[in-house]
Amino acid sequence: MGFEETRAQSRQLAGSLDCPWREIEVHRFPDGESRVTVPPDVRGTGVVHRSLDRPNDKLVELVLAAETLRRQGCDRLVLVAPYLCYMRQDIAFHPGEAVAQRVVGNLLARYFDALITVDPHLHRIDRLDQAVPLKQVLSLSSATLISRYLATGERKRLLLGPDQESRQWVEAIAAQAGLPCAVASKRRMGDREVGIALPRETGAFEAVVLVDDVASTGTTLAETARLLAQGGVTRIDVVVTHALFAGDAWNRLKQAGVGEVVSTDSISHPTNRMCLAPLLADAVRRCAF
Amino acid sequence: MGFEETRAQSRQLAGSLDCPWREIEVHRFPDGESRVTVPPDVRGTGVVHRSLDRPNDKLVELVLAAETLRRQGCDRLVLVAPYLCYMRQDIAFHPGEAVAQRVVGNLLARYFDALITVDPHLHRIDRLDQAVPLKQVLSLSSATLISRYLATGERKRLLLGPDQESRQWVEAIAAQAGLPCAVASKRRMGDREVGIALPRETGAFEAVVLVDDVASTGTTLAETARLLAQGGVTRIDVVVTHALFAGDAWNRLKQAGVGEVVSTDSISHPTNRMCLAPLLADAVRRCAF
Repeated sequence: MGFEETRAQSRQLAGSLDCPWREIEVHRFPDGESRVTVPPDVRGTGVVHRSLDRPNDKLVELVLAAETLRRQGCDRLVLVAPYLCYMRQDIAFHPGEAVAQRVVGNLLARYFDALITVDPHLHRIDRLDQAVPLKQVLSLSSATLISRYLATGERKRLLLGPDQESRQWVEAIAAQAGLPCAVASKRRMGDREVGIALPRETGAFEAVVLVDDVASTGTTLAETARLLAQGGVTRIDVVVTHALFAGDAWNRLKQAGVGEVVSTDSISHPTNRMCLAPLLADAVRRCAF
Repeated sequence: MGFEETRAQSRQLAGSLDCPWREIEVHRFPDGESRVTVPPDVRGTGVVHRSLDRPNDKLVELVLAAETLRRQGCDRLVLVAPYLCYMRQDIAFHPGEAVAQRVVGNLLARYFDALITVDPHLHRIDRLDQAVPLKQVLSLSSATLISRYLATGERKRLLLGPDQESRQWVEAIAAQAGLPCAVASKRRMGDREVGIALPRETGAFEAVVLVDDVASTGTTLAETARLLAQGGVTRIDVVVTHALFAGDAWNRLKQAGVGEVVSTDSISHPTNRMCLAPLLADAVRRCAF
């Protein structure tokens, strides 16, 4: 089952699984309430596909859908959320701050039996099931998908990750794509302010591909691109898993001198070039049937 | 504890209870996620005041706040939600439709120990605890507050309720205010379309006060006012408990010939004239301490 905003993706997933597809319909009333209608004839296992960007409306609607499906006789619900929300709020930076990663993880675990996601942004925990307490939690990597995309392009390019935490993921992509790689270092100073230091390797390349798990405000990517351009890099492209692009983020990248921007289809966006359906289908097969 | 959008009301409630007041802070990130920070020193019983108009963001933030307060040592959480959301979705009008009244009621019951609200819109159930399965659910009536407000005004006015379901409530207000009353009949044909029939009594009055529990799109009130004006009523005022006023609803009332519009302060709005704090404080005393 899927929702309107990623109808194409959830249909592709159903196609990859060779199983029927149905829409969960959402009507938003003028007063801000949502009316959710699930297909009335689903029994047994239900697979619900919904990416959780701009998450609050979608979380409430997922709760409405899940409880309604249960009441109708679904005894097993699998949530496929290619983009998983609230993963960056993983610690109380100030006393009293909600550790939203855990609270939202607990909420999802109350309504679903299994969760499948792609490249969740985990900083301070090693495994996603520490945030979402379910027996079946599959955290997939887009590294192979991205490396295949990059392997078809120009050879003399450096892959550049945003920070030390991305090193392992960037190295996996680079190795599979047969490209050199490095990572920058980053210090965050606010929602839209970061300090970036480029690694030495960037001096030796005229073309750089920035790879990141998520483009949110685009601040990190734009600032890195600006520094690369200053340093003489003439071609800067961007590859991300999740094209969140809050507000004017996409324009900001273009203004910073970025050439091509591509993403997986975890969130519907004009930059989508890589289809997650086969990867997700494989995971659903492992935990739904 | 209260939130920014109804800070004044929750402070008044704390004042009426003679207990300390603290704010639950919400920051909305550019990507649509909310960061919630609760006061770090609350233990024992916590009273959380939040009206649930435009509810989806607020519901997620309530879940974040409640679980964080529990983790810090609150062993009893009372939710004061003067306007309670999703009460009109109380049946599946089509197969597969979520009965949101129950699902949201169950959600709130997972995170809070007691609920206090005012004039919830109950059609097909008699008692609010059928929707919100908690031992302590207090459903307060604004009838006395509204009747006191009306008792100070013009005497030769008819109070007019929107439909048969409102009769008991309108009669209670009219009896206490010493004013005559009647109710219209209503047939709903869509989000913004209703068919209204006026009762005979309206022909005998030049001044009518429309009373209703909630002004949402304002469609019912505007259509009733239009019919009253056509019938020769020269002064039409409106009194509502909940000033939801979705979109351009308030303007629509003015265009329909409505004079004064007043409301309780359950939802912050320029029409607020009646303060719920003493009524709510009395209920909190009954169930929190």
